[in-house]
Amino acid sequence: MFKKILVANRGEIAIRIIRSARELGIKTVAVYEETDKTAQHIMKADEAVCIGSGPRKDYLSVDRIIQAARATGSEAVHPGYGFLAENPLFAKECTDAGLAFVGPPAQVIIDMGSKVVARSLMTEAGVPVIPGSSVLAEGERGEGEALAFAERYGFPVMIKAVAGGGGRGIRPAKSRDELIKGLKMARSEARMAFGNDAIYLEKALVRARHVEVQILADNHGNVIHLGTRNCSIQRRHQKMIEIAPAGLPKLVIERICQDAVTAARKTGYVSAGTVEFLVDHDDQYYFLEVNTRIQVEHTVTEMITGIDIVREQIRVAAGSELSLRQEDVQLRGYAIELRINAEDPKNHFMASPGIIQVYQAPGGHGIRLDGAIYQGYEIPQYYDSMLVKLTVYGFSWREAVDRLRRALNGFNIVGVQTTIPFYRQIVDDPDFIDQRFDTSYIETHPHLLEYEEAVPDMERLARLVAEINSYGFNPYAEPR
Amino acid sequence: MFKKILVANRGEIAIRIIRSARELGIKTVAVYEETDKTAQHIMKADEAVCIGSGPRKDYLSVDRIIQAARATGSEAVHPGYGFLAENPLFAKECTDAGLAFVGPPAQVIIDMGSKVVARSLMTEAGVPVIPGSSVLAEGERGEGEALAFAERYGFPVMIKAVAGGGGRGIRPAKSRDELIKGLKMARSEARMAFGNDAIYLEKALVRARHVEVQILADNHGNVIHLGTRNCSIQRRHQKMIEIAPAGLPKLVIERICQDAVTAARKTGYVSAGTVEFLVDHDDQYYFLEVNTRIQVEHTVTEMITGIDIVREQIRVAAGSELSLRQEDVQLRGYAIELRINAEDPKNHFMASPGIIQVYQAPGGHGIRLDGAIYQGYEIPQYYDSMLVKLTVYGFSWREAVDRLRRALNGFNIVGVQTTIPFYRQIVDDPDFIDQRFDTSYIETHPHLLEYEEAVPDMERLARLVAEINSYGFNPYAEPR
Repeated sequence: MFKKILVANRGEIAIRIIRSARELGIKTVAVYEETDKTAQHIMKADEAVCIGSGPRKDYLSVDRIIQAARATGSEAVHPGYGFLAENPLFAKECTDAGLAFVGPPAQVIIDMGSKVVARSLMTEAGVPVIPGSSVLAEGERGEGEALAFAERYGFPVMIKAVAGGGGRGIRPAKSRDELIKGLKMARSEARMAFGNDAIYLEKALVRARHVEVQILADNHGNVIHLGTRNCSIQRRHQKMIEIAPAGLPKLVIERICQDAVTAARKTGYVSAGTVEFLVDHDDQYYFLEVNTRIQVEHTVTEMITGIDIVREQIRVAAGSELSLRQEDVQLRGYAIELRINAEDPKNHFMASPGIIQVYQAPGGHGIRLDGAIYQGYEIPQYYDSMLVKLTVYGFSWREAVDRLRRALNGFNIVGVQTTIPFYRQIVDDPDFIDQRFDTSYIETHPHLLEYEEAVPDMERLARLVAEINSYGFNPYAEPR
Repeated sequence: MFKKILVANRGEIAIRIIRSARELGIKTVAVYEETDKTAQHIMKADEAVCIGSGPRKDYLSVDRIIQAARATGSEAVHPGYGFLAENPLFAKECTDAGLAFVGPPAQVIIDMGSKVVARSLMTEAGVPVIPGSSVLAEGERGEGEALAFAERYGFPVMIKAVAGGGGRGIRPAKSRDELIKGLKMARSEARMAFGNDAIYLEKALVRARHVEVQILADNHGNVIHLGTRNCSIQRRHQKMIEIAPAGLPKLVIERICQDAVTAARKTGYVSAGTVEFLVDHDDQYYFLEVNTRIQVEHTVTEMITGIDIVREQIRVAAGSELSLRQEDVQLRGYAIELRINAEDPKNHFMASPGIIQVYQAPGGHGIRLDGAIYQGYEIPQYYDSMLVKLTVYGFSWREAVDRLRRALNGFNIVGVQTTIPFYRQIVDDPDFIDQRFDTSYIETHPHLLEYEEAVPDMERLARLVAEINSYGFNPYAEPR
């Protein structure tokens, strides 16, 4: 096993990785930008290296991070999610520098980073893909190809950047006009965002569910799955709430998980990864993409399987076999995960940086917290606004929902606005409670944004004290 | 289901109960003494009632608590553990007042409160009991009976108070002299502690393991078990660390669990309870006692079964059937629980009251926290010194131990001394790691109390900052 590992990330995922590394007896090295120097991941690691003035650019610097790994004698690098996690150059440079990269080989990242290559590999492997076009030619010829595709499969269609992923580089078109206009904008956006303006079309599945399968693979030919997740509740293609298992018929679950393992084998996958699908009204599923990283929502899978995915990731990177076989994986209960962000839901979820004056969190049975904040911490304006990831477990779906509601009410965060009031609305919504949600959920439930600001806990405490004093039988109360 | 429930306790167990009640949609009423008015359970409940000036006596007042329940329109009372939890009069008075008592019927508490009645019922039911005497006569006749018993079964023997329990009212005797002297002292202690000086003898099992079985029973004749716990690591007969499952051969586990169900049926048990056994070197087990309450260590069972025991307790008290059958209970992994107390381990675990200036707790996969403290809270001197109960889960035993070590290091508690440094020693002890422990563990491992005070996290942070600045390639560091 490694003696020392560098964590090339910040925030909750850096701490998440440090935890598993420590449990394996591995020393940890944190990196940080000057603009992030009060971050908690620095305190949790055994060593910490400042990699630049920031903000953000140094967490993206392949050279500085590899230099930090070498200088500290690290043997491996874990990229987390975001930043360099799906940058194949980073994976390759790590390997070239003699550092184990905790993730799949660079070539897998390259292949899965290209939506066209990924689709083609899946088609070869017999995994169903959404009907899609080839890469569109530029100019009028491309328009002709696009219109022909739309005529064959019908509107709506999705214009997608070949280099996109994770909800970025997607533009829907419901008509000829939207399609023609959208092609130009999508191409220009793709060039800006990914440095690659190649685009293609996919048939849009209306009100589909987003279902994904967690896979684990080692260098010894073992590939297993850890069941499904339902990540349909999204805002602007960004996941907001994730659930495990996905709530599909048993036979569909079996087939989709088997296809995910087939997909992983076909790509030569190693490490933890996610095979994403869209599922239509008839429970027909179609391959969407492979995420070649640990995902934010891996915690729901850990809750229902009891398996530490990051521990397996690190073990695999060190050359070990997976510590378990498919038959060792047993699902139990239901898990729900959501991200509590410093944002104002009523103001377009605008970031709400500030100082955490009070931070109290729920606990007890079936509650998992992955945070990177502490009382007194100032949320910097430069990074994502996640305060803490809440994952709850329930023996039944209803128990999980009940627990989620209780947990949301158990937070006491003073100093910044948070997304908690919005989640409170969702957890009381009959559609959510009855598991009636697809990818259109947030936009079709605009009333969830209409709520009264909750009474802060300090006010509630004052109310309680008044109430307490009003009981006549309290022998110590003032006479009324 | 009840609309409102009163929680007749304080601290972590009061909050634990409030959580399950809230999840069931039940309003909660906290009670508190004046000396405990800043306690967190007050803030977590929907209502709170001051029941007196305290300290301690009002939490023990049957009348005041029933009055509070009536005044608030509560339909049920949950006693937690300690205080009135095993007071049959309280159970009966609740029932007489039309309040559901969340626990077994008063007669079961009475029967199990008498070690002699409990032993006799178990003998009738065919559950093995430790060889023991009848209640000893007073004076010289009792001495004669005691010596005859010791002659027949050999020393050491245990002198036990009939009304004892939970580790109290026990006195070992290794010789005739110790026995004769011990009888007088035990009788006088029992009179003082329990108001009942009846005593009897049991054969002492040397270096036995303490193994208990969690049971759940409803009013419809259903009795199930939730597997075993090993609670052998004790200091002065008080449990310090509890583990699930108990680590016995499969066949022994099956038999002991079946005998626990038999025991529960024989006593007419309803609600959650624990059947405790001692297990000798040859894996022979003997009935010890039944605890007619929710126990501190119930959390390890919840971790490995995924079942909310308090939720079931409340449902059963409301007349529902258990929500699961024996075949629905599946154990997974290993769980370890310990109590982090405000005590100084190096000074005979003396209480260390004070203000919690900083409170940061570990999180992530497999960590459960049941606490009742917050940053700024002043630990009152009047109550038990538990700050937070830490429960960890691991897919394997080794993973659970690794996680426990990581979690202990993840606490940052400033302002009071805690038992964390002592637990850090245990988690690194080869005997603990290899599961070689019996009830003599703490006294046979005195070296565990020899440790350096850990470097507080703030100092560690300062060290990190110095280390950070020492890296030459940090472009923002001062030249060295």
